[in-house]
Amino acid sequence: MATHHPIMTKEDLIAFLDREFPQIHVGGQTYFLDEIGPLSARMRMDYHERHLRPGGTISGPSMMALADLALYAAILAHIGPVALAVTTSLNFNFLRKPEARALIANCRLLKLGKRLAVGEVSIFSEGSPDVVCHATGTYSIPSA
Amino acid sequence: MATHHPIMTKEDLIAFLDREFPQIHVGGQTYFLDEIGPLSARMRMDYHERHLRPGGTISGPSMMALADLALYAAILAHIGPVALAVTTSLNFNFLRKPEARALIANCRLLKLGKRLAVGEVSIFSEGSPDVVCHATGTYSIPSA
Amino acid sequence: MATHHPIMTKEDLIAFLDREFPQIHVGGQTYFLDEIGPLSARMRMDYHERHLRPGGTISGPSMMALADLALYAAILAHIGPVALAVTTSLNFNFLRKPEARALIANCRLLKLGKRLAVGEVSIFSEGSPDVVCHATGTYSIPSA
Amino acid sequence: MATHHPIMTKEDLIAFLDREFPQIHVGGQTYFLDEIGPLSARMRMDYHERHLRPGGTISGPSMMALADLALYAAILAHIGPVALAVTTSLNFNFLRKPEARALIANCRLLKLGKRLAVGEVSIFSEGSPDVVCHATGTYSIPSA
Repeated sequence: MATHHPIMTKEDLIAFLDREFPQIHVGGQTYFLDEIGPLSARMRMDYHERHLRPGGTISGPSMMALADLALYAAILAHIGPVALAVTTSLNFNFLRKPEARALIANCRLLKLGKRLAVGEVSIFSEGSPDVVCHATGTYSIPSA
Repeated sequence: MATHHPIMTKEDLIAFLDREFPQIHVGGQTYFLDEIGPLSARMRMDYHERHLRPGGTISGPSMMALADLALYAAILAHIGPVALAVTTSLNFNFLRKPEARALIANCRLLKLGKRLAVGEVSIFSEGSPDVVCHATGTYSIPSA
Repeated sequence: MATHHPIMTKEDLIAFLDREFPQIHVGGQTYFLDEIGPLSARMRMDYHERHLRPGGTISGPSMMALADLALYAAILAHIGPVALAVTTSLNFNFLRKPEARALIANCRLLKLGKRLAVGEVSIFSEGSPDVVCHATGTYSIPSA
Repeated sequence: MATHHPIMTKEDLIAFLDREFPQIHVGGQTYFLDEIGPLSARMRMDYHERHLRPGGTISGPSMMALADLALYAAILAHIGPVALAVTTSLNFNFLRKPEARALIANCRLLKLGKRLAVGEVSIFSEGSPDVVCHATGTYSIPSA
């Protein structure tokens, strides 16, 4: 898989996501695509009150949405904006309570096949080395 | 496990969730606890524009939040509002695109141990027999 | 999905599995297909020393093999012996230590699509109502 | 977690596994602990006919047993042979058909808590850079 490289620029991918998924920015944008690379993508989720749970921790569903989006962005970056990838499965392990800070999601694609793409995501609190949530996901890629 | 019964009434559980998790109702309440029973709970998610994705389908993260909440409600109903259960893992299979209708989540607890509770959730579009999303989840229960 | 029915008889499916997967019987047959039905299958794993772990409990890998086989049998029963389904993901929750008895695996298909089939399996100790292991799995179905 | 280091030597851990889990070597030893390190372990599964499936590929259950064992070894190396860790959940993505060669499982612990340990495993065909199977698992650690 070492030959796989993104075919979309970060700017084009951001423009595509903003146009196709305006809902993710409702209430103020908190999800940002930081970087795309070979079989990888990094997303950031800003700290915002609507992601919180009692005790100042960030909600599980916010992290699940972040992981799903990071995987989706990584896949689209490599197959282009035409194809419509659909999430078929997601698995999450919640490891630590995230602090009241931004979250960084590092996504790595493990497989980019013709029909299925699989990747993993490690989510960190900004500035901390410990994984707070780890996810794996599978996306179905429609035939051209 | 046939002897396990809820120790909270539906009304008390709703009051607890509303008080402790006001964030889930930000933007207008869409999640409702319909019923609790022996090792089970049923939640409903009203159709709302903020849950949508292109094509009128309901977003994955909305369904993930619904499943997480249904599991959490089922567990709390059986262990009481004092204990703080923490989600440790969640696994989702997305089976069909949900239509633009309310979703119903049926949760069934598979295990209610001293340290871990495990359950599964089947999510349906209201009025349809087909499962659109299936989830399993594990929650850690703190020692008393 | 209520219209889905098996297209193979139990006898034909057993003959196919025995012919194509002789390895699962190495050391003496312990896996048996008990029944197939609409979107369902039931398999049995006999108690055998080679499945054990210290304390007389049955090993996780034995239960994982049983769940994988039950899902595979359920899918083949509905799509026929020609197609080659490949496991793409499996998720397991281990709920209780199984006793030193035969295990029964009840499989239910949640989706039988053109490209993906998804099902869940509940494994019980024979004669007990408690689930000892719960599994969900996804299989890729090659295009005809 | 950078301060976590193994408290068992590789030799002691091998001796413990051989003594406590003789069943994994029935039919001839194929699983070998190659290395342990800070929050990590590497196991090897030799190519053997009993792990095969039609077409010369290695069976899913063989890889699942390998991943489970690698996680178990990594955890024991860090908590010692006294404590009895129990697998509570395992999730697998099968990415490519493994060739008829030995498999290498690289395990990395993501969390080593007082009650739960979580890790991930990447399985490769020996000499190949592509992941054939990726696993995550959770183990319950009994109180001392």
